[in-house]
Amino acid sequence: MLLPTHGANPNVFLKAIGAENLSHIKDFSVNTNPLGAPLVLHEKWNEFKDAAFSYPDPQVTELKNKLAAHHHVSAAQVLPTNGAAEAFFLIASLFSGEKAGIVQPTFVEYEQASKAYGCEVTYVPLAEENGWSWDIELIMSILPDIKVLWICHPNNPTGVMYSHEEWMKVVKAAAHHGTYLIIDEAFIDFVEHQPSFDSLILDYEHIIVVRSMTKMFNIAGLRLGYILANEKIISKMSKKQPPWSVNGLSQQVGMICVDEKDFVKKTVHYIKQERERILSQLKEWGLLVSPSQTNYYLCSVPSSIKTREWLVYLASHGVVARHTENFPFLNGRYIRLAVKTKEENDYLLKVIKQGLDEI
Amino acid sequence: MLLPTHGANPNVFLKAIGAENLSHIKDFSVNTNPLGAPLVLHEKWNEFKDAAFSYPDPQVTELKNKLAAHHHVSAAQVLPTNGAAEAFFLIASLFSGEKAGIVQPTFVEYEQASKAYGCEVTYVPLAEENGWSWDIELIMSILPDIKVLWICHPNNPTGVMYSHEEWMKVVKAAAHHGTYLIIDEAFIDFVEHQPSFDSLILDYEHIIVVRSMTKMFNIAGLRLGYILANEKIISKMSKKQPPWSVNGLSQQVGMICVDEKDFVKKTVHYIKQERERILSQLKEWGLLVSPSQTNYYLCSVPSSIKTREWLVYLASHGVVARHTENFPFLNGRYIRLAVKTKEENDYLLKVIKQGLDEI
Repeated sequence: MLLPTHGANPNVFLKAIGAENLSHIKDFSVNTNPLGAPLVLHEKWNEFKDAAFSYPDPQVTELKNKLAAHHHVSAAQVLPTNGAAEAFFLIASLFSGEKAGIVQPTFVEYEQASKAYGCEVTYVPLAEENGWSWDIELIMSILPDIKVLWICHPNNPTGVMYSHEEWMKVVKAAAHHGTYLIIDEAFIDFVEHQPSFDSLILDYEHIIVVRSMTKMFNIAGLRLGYILANEKIISKMSKKQPPWSVNGLSQQVGMICVDEKDFVKKTVHYIKQERERILSQLKEWGLLVSPSQTNYYLCSVPSSIKTREWLVYLASHGVVARHTENFPFLNGRYIRLAVKTKEENDYLLKVIKQGLDEI
Repeated sequence: MLLPTHGANPNVFLKAIGAENLSHIKDFSVNTNPLGAPLVLHEKWNEFKDAAFSYPDPQVTELKNKLAAHHHVSAAQVLPTNGAAEAFFLIASLFSGEKAGIVQPTFVEYEQASKAYGCEVTYVPLAEENGWSWDIELIMSILPDIKVLWICHPNNPTGVMYSHEEWMKVVKAAAHHGTYLIIDEAFIDFVEHQPSFDSLILDYEHIIVVRSMTKMFNIAGLRLGYILANEKIISKMSKKQPPWSVNGLSQQVGMICVDEKDFVKKTVHYIKQERERILSQLKEWGLLVSPSQTNYYLCSVPSSIKTREWLVYLASHGVVARHTENFPFLNGRYIRLAVKTKEENDYLLKVIKQGLDEI
């Protein structure tokens, strides 16, 4: 049976592997903030009712201005979207029928969006043997042959980032060849010092940066992302965006979240500590993990068991992992796990250890 | 100065006509339910928090099933959307570069969406002299020359509906010529007996019906619409729809709203009574009104005053009307007004009467 194409869909996953009706599920396939939403969103929840029951600002003016100030760009260089998912489709619409490269394995929606707009898609494989880094020579060699290259940074599902020096080589070569770079920074908020490429859009017309607010602020149900790019590109994409695409609640909640700097700092600190604790334990047990810098990581499957059986074992103990069957070059050989609360991470480690001892 | 392209945007409108900073605005440019949202949405507001803070079902399974049952069609014939606005863009994407007809004056987004997908747009004028009915001969004559015809029913901004007999002529002729008919039923919920063409999709592959839940249930800030059509067309459009496009709150709220049958009945009864009361009064004063069957209507401007001056006069008394400068064939000669609460409607009539006496 086919497993669901995304994480954060535990019931469909459990049904697919034949483990329905489990109670006390811990969903390690969802990559949102384990600390939950900022407290202020809970406190102000009742005030948001008005935003649900009236028309949103179709221009998203206030949020656009706030995000522009946050990134030190102009409002004309920002396009808020109905989650980062809408951003990918709006971007793909710019490259209808063109040749698109995707650095793989990565988030599945770049390919879905590209194919929806008739792009010819080429996979650019990451160097698994080199800690899932990118193969800079390969990247440089493909740039002249494609119109656009999609790169997730930090990458999903590996959590890996690439060196600034190599990035600048790629950026300059891409500019030279007129190749667009789509940099998806959906998970950069969780990375220490958050080395965003937002400022590159000021100097390079061919750089498009995608951001998500749903992960850090735990508002996946509301949907909020945005695109940072040259104003001409933003204007072109905005013509394909339906009016009121960013709902009223997201606009209001987004305004509040941009100011939640302490919450972000606390989260980043927590994620780093927990990730390092978990990864060192898993490595000690002989499992291979990706050198993630964010709030999820790849983990190998014990060699004595098949992946599906391992997923079923974990699920039978209430642990839902993200399978990797629909990630090119992974084909299910790893699982992706989120960094969750200390209690949940301890439970995960206990279940994995027990599994390693039993099988 | 250019006025805003949509209603429900009173601050931008007031700024454009130079009447900012007014307090106690009554927004007659917004066409949502004057009775507000169903009580149950207020009561359950706190329960919706979980839906905001977790991933929505990307397949929108439960809501899709519920809407399918409501319309007596199959779930594969329903596509929930991020408001009806997303529906128009997904539909337009099917007809990229084709010839599109739009029965005008009507809602501006059919043209925006069609142009975003490179359609060649032709206006099919309504018969103003005949109570804003359609010109059936003209419609029949244009069908062979276009790939798709957009019709709003009841029409926005006139509120007018067309006879069933004529509709069936158009439907059959369109089928014969292989021309698609897009029937936007965004405001049909407010019409007595709600004569929807939802069931036509079962017999005609070229009929696409759009529905909105934001108007009747007053959830414009959440966004919820859907498309009813042949399963092949739904499947084609769904490939262009970003995942999680329908946010989690809308999915949950939508499930509840489908069951609010008494609320709908009460609203329809109220709107009919109020509309008839207002329209007969306006006609008595010599103003021309469109024979609306829904919750808004066109109203002429007193002959002794220019439209912009009339809009400013109304605004100076706190009444925001929908200008019609960007409706083809209207060019600002009328204003559109919503049927609101009794108190608001009384106030509107008082302000109009005072204006008629003074100018």
